Amino acid sequence: MKVEHIGIAVQDLAKAVAYYKALFPEAECIEEPVADGSMKMVIVKADNLKLELMEPLKENSPVGKFIAKRGEGLHHIAYAVKDIVASMADAKAAGIRLLTEEPYTGAEECLVCFMHPKDTFGTLSEFCQHPVK
Amino acid sequence: MKVEHIGIAVQDLAKAVAYYKALFPEAECIEEPVADGSMKMVIVKADNLKLELMEPLKENSPVGKFIAKRGEGLHHIAYAVKDIVASMADAKAAGIRLLTEEPYTGAEECLVCFMHPKDTFGTLSEFCQHPVK
Repeated sequence: MKVEHIGIAVQDLAKAVAYYKALFPEAECIEEPVADGSMKMVIVKADNLKLELMEPLKENSPVGKFIAKRGEGLHHIAYAVKDIVASMADAKAAGIRLLTEEPYTGAEECLVCFMHPKDTFGTLSEFCQHPVK
Repeated sequence: MKVEHIGIAVQDLAKAVAYYKALFPEAECIEEPVADGSMKMVIVKADNLKLELMEPLKENSPVGKFIAKRGEGLHHIAYAVKDIVASMADAKAAGIRLLTEEPYTGAEECLVCFMHPKDTFGTLSEFCQHPVK
């Protein structure tokens, strides 16, 4: 089991990046384009995983709605999986609803699928399969 | 920069452990005693970091109050640091308030100190220094 990244919803990406640069100057911060224009994203590369900092650009986007309801903060946890279709079947077998029936392409060209947070004790959780290189 | 663990607040530790055993049967789940009796804790060992699952035993404990206010879910992120006193000084210099003036002993005999979530974009964040062995 490997945690691929942690998603953090922020209101001001520049301020969040400044925080990481102040406390962890050795960590690389990389802008990641988001195709649907719903948010701006910076990936902070820790030694053992990544942090996805997400600033919404639209109020009715998933991250925009999250901040409106709960405020800024930890948003989701992503698990690296080798076979996302098999992991999705495991989740279904364990009674966990999936937010999409099929995996789709997320950040860094990964195949992703989210589970319903009501079925994962309030923690929005993602399966993330890296592209074959 | 290394993420030492992610803390997750849950209402039912047994259910949360069952979820990890169903989806990631290879991950080790270890009960961790909590000295002050405020919560029960199970540490889930991923390959690259740990997850601290925390079930409050007292409503007025930090995790109990968190769940009452925000519901279950992602609670905090802990960064592994080599010199916690130096990291605390860096945080103060960056204008970040600390929840305690001194580090104290947390889970697994680590020295820990939390930063104020209002100064870290809503993300409760911990410095964590492993004991010298």
